[in-house]
Amino acid sequence: MTPSDSAPNPMVPHLTTALNGPLLDLEQRILNAQPAIEHWFRTQWQEHTIPFYASVDLRNAGFKLAPVDTNLFPGGFNNLNSDFLPLCVQAAQSAIEKICPEARGVLLVPENHTRNQFYLQNVARLALILKQAGLKVRIGSLLPEITAATTLTLSNGATLTLEPLLRKGNRLVVEGFDPCVILLNNDLSAGVPEVLQNLEQSVLPPLQAGWTTRRKSQHFAAYDRVANEFAQIIGIDPWLINPYFARCGEVDFQAQTGEECLVAQVDSVLQKIRAKYAEYGVKDEPFVIVKADAGTYGMGIMTVKDANEVRGLNRKQRNKMAVVKEGLQVHDVLVQEGVYTFEHINEAVAEPVVYMVDHYVVGGFYRVHTGRGVDENLNAPGMHFVPLAFETCCSLPNPDCAPDDTPNRFYAYGVVARLALLAAAVELEEMAG
Amino acid sequence: MTPSDSAPNPMVPHLTTALNGPLLDLEQRILNAQPAIEHWFRTQWQEHTIPFYASVDLRNAGFKLAPVDTNLFPGGFNNLNSDFLPLCVQAAQSAIEKICPEARGVLLVPENHTRNQFYLQNVARLALILKQAGLKVRIGSLLPEITAATTLTLSNGATLTLEPLLRKGNRLVVEGFDPCVILLNNDLSAGVPEVLQNLEQSVLPPLQAGWTTRRKSQHFAAYDRVANEFAQIIGIDPWLINPYFARCGEVDFQAQTGEECLVAQVDSVLQKIRAKYAEYGVKDEPFVIVKADAGTYGMGIMTVKDANEVRGLNRKQRNKMAVVKEGLQVHDVLVQEGVYTFEHINEAVAEPVVYMVDHYVVGGFYRVHTGRGVDENLNAPGMHFVPLAFETCCSLPNPDCAPDDTPNRFYAYGVVARLALLAAAVELEEMAG
Repeated sequence: MTPSDSAPNPMVPHLTTALNGPLLDLEQRILNAQPAIEHWFRTQWQEHTIPFYASVDLRNAGFKLAPVDTNLFPGGFNNLNSDFLPLCVQAAQSAIEKICPEARGVLLVPENHTRNQFYLQNVARLALILKQAGLKVRIGSLLPEITAATTLTLSNGATLTLEPLLRKGNRLVVEGFDPCVILLNNDLSAGVPEVLQNLEQSVLPPLQAGWTTRRKSQHFAAYDRVANEFAQIIGIDPWLINPYFARCGEVDFQAQTGEECLVAQVDSVLQKIRAKYAEYGVKDEPFVIVKADAGTYGMGIMTVKDANEVRGLNRKQRNKMAVVKEGLQVHDVLVQEGVYTFEHINEAVAEPVVYMVDHYVVGGFYRVHTGRGVDENLNAPGMHFVPLAFETCCSLPNPDCAPDDTPNRFYAYGVVARLALLAAAVELEEMAG
Repeated sequence: MTPSDSAPNPMVPHLTTALNGPLLDLEQRILNAQPAIEHWFRTQWQEHTIPFYASVDLRNAGFKLAPVDTNLFPGGFNNLNSDFLPLCVQAAQSAIEKICPEARGVLLVPENHTRNQFYLQNVARLALILKQAGLKVRIGSLLPEITAATTLTLSNGATLTLEPLLRKGNRLVVEGFDPCVILLNNDLSAGVPEVLQNLEQSVLPPLQAGWTTRRKSQHFAAYDRVANEFAQIIGIDPWLINPYFARCGEVDFQAQTGEECLVAQVDSVLQKIRAKYAEYGVKDEPFVIVKADAGTYGMGIMTVKDANEVRGLNRKQRNKMAVVKEGLQVHDVLVQEGVYTFEHINEAVAEPVVYMVDHYVVGGFYRVHTGRGVDENLNAPGMHFVPLAFETCCSLPNPDCAPDDTPNRFYAYGVVARLALLAAAVELEEMAG
């Protein structure tokens, strides 16, 4: 999710939405059912422990609006429209009240990207949100080279002080600061560092939300159930908000084992999509995304339109698929229905990313990329995406307005993103026990 | 609180704050103690049931920042900066989750001012907030002349449909709509109408929050305790955030009884203020505000600088004091320390009003009035106030910024307003027994 090398300034025009024209049937149905939807969400929030924060990548194919990735360590708070900062602060206060009302101090543990200005701006923004929510905030780094407090000046003028993490028995501290809560903004792709193990403090999100233990297939299995229940409430085919998926364990791209499982699963998912496309009269060519079941950063991802494409991959393709962030080896593979994105800004493909704190939608942005097709992953290594903040927030649907009113479109995005958030809550509960 | 005849357009410039210059010592102390303050508030919100909404009139004398009135049926949502509408919606969702998560429909019961465009715009705004929070909303009128659904077109183009209230056993309904919750935006100055009595539905705020039973003196007695506890936390003299007050019962302005009590109390409060002014080197002349202990709308209010002024009032003065809104007779009188307001916009005196939904500060505005002095009540009948929306919200303090940064000033306003809200919660609990 982190914009590893975004363009420095979003120079594209501030369109309010990338998809113009009247609301599509699905969006209209979601809008019409708003009171029922919000009532249902309220009961769900009461029954589940909601992650502290999350971001969800959506794809809007017009006939279908679905989440394709749910990130529990969102890294782009700096990309949100700063006008909605108060929403983040209010939502953070709500989260703290529910999860750790006694907390006074929070230690933020970020990723180790100290040279990535965009990521560091995200950390600075997150620290500001927590401070404005009324907490004392310090930033503890896992980097071995941070041996003393180190202040970085960011390209936007903000400063950020990273401090070395210390253990005091079962407590994680930094010099002169013993926090009540540890907030992870690190997805633990490299495993759970010893310094974070067996802590007596609350760790948010819990350690099992890291990619050492988390699996996309488990998330989307939970999403299946959430989407089915939701679809029943508003009377739609759950497929309209849910991508098909399948999983292959024991794949080794380097040793070329597990290939048959992959071919079979890709074929099976493509067939299911074909049947749905026929049912709905969709003329596009079905495709699947093959990606690591654990991991992030758009590494280890392929777009596949024919099962034979995953047979006999060449060395370059195998290398690309075999390893994700931090050198984590890929063994489990997710085969996910590809959802076309029909949102464009000028000539560029745009993918909405929705941000949530507690169960509140606090903003979002478009990942806009000029060099990629409608069927490709927009979060690929080296991508030059432009973050384009949503101009309105996602919580202002107005049934009395014209159906193509922008807030109405964003409302649908906020609903589907919250479904994915709810699935993440269910997923974490299942992992916990 | 309702702007009974505001100017149609706020033509004054959109200053970010009426009080310029560096943050005063008190504001700086509040800012410095932010983590301790928010931690304390969190524990308070857990211990008390917070009113659905409230607005608080503040006065900023520089050395002193205090609430002078707490309204549990706020009537100026239309005056808030519409950029912060998402904050209102998010806070309303939070309130609904806590108070009535099962609610699907809400019936809003407004005041009977069908000819007051500004008040009707407030009702329309409130209905929109509730709709956007995901509820079905209808508006039920207490007016006998509303015998069928009546749609009003407001001067800002919005429409509002008022419907006659009906009883179905112990349920309050309108035609074809049986709500889960009744939200009062009517302060019940005329008593609790029979149609609202003995309802099985939740009524928010509770009926005892109406002026039939509520007393300002009880609110400020609760505020005394809240302010004392808070003052201890940040190490200040509680007087700096708390106006002295006293109460006289059994006053009859028409029959001229109870005058001696009033003279004695006015004198006593003035003496206490004099001592504090001497202690702090304040050169201004102490004054008190004499007002009805129950009631609103700035009726029945006098500014008094000498106890003898309340002796032998002439007929006109007595008439002015004897009756408040809806012809409610004044018997109990509050003598409240007057707090100078040193906030100005151009030549005009400005009084900040802070709005809250649940325990979240969602915005505010200035009551700006050119024809009044710094020691007068700005919410008087016939006043021509200009609502000037706060340009920033109150929840974004930034300790890293210059102390005269605007958000920092507004943070202090939000803190003191929340203290008054907390006092209202305590007050309602005491009334409920």
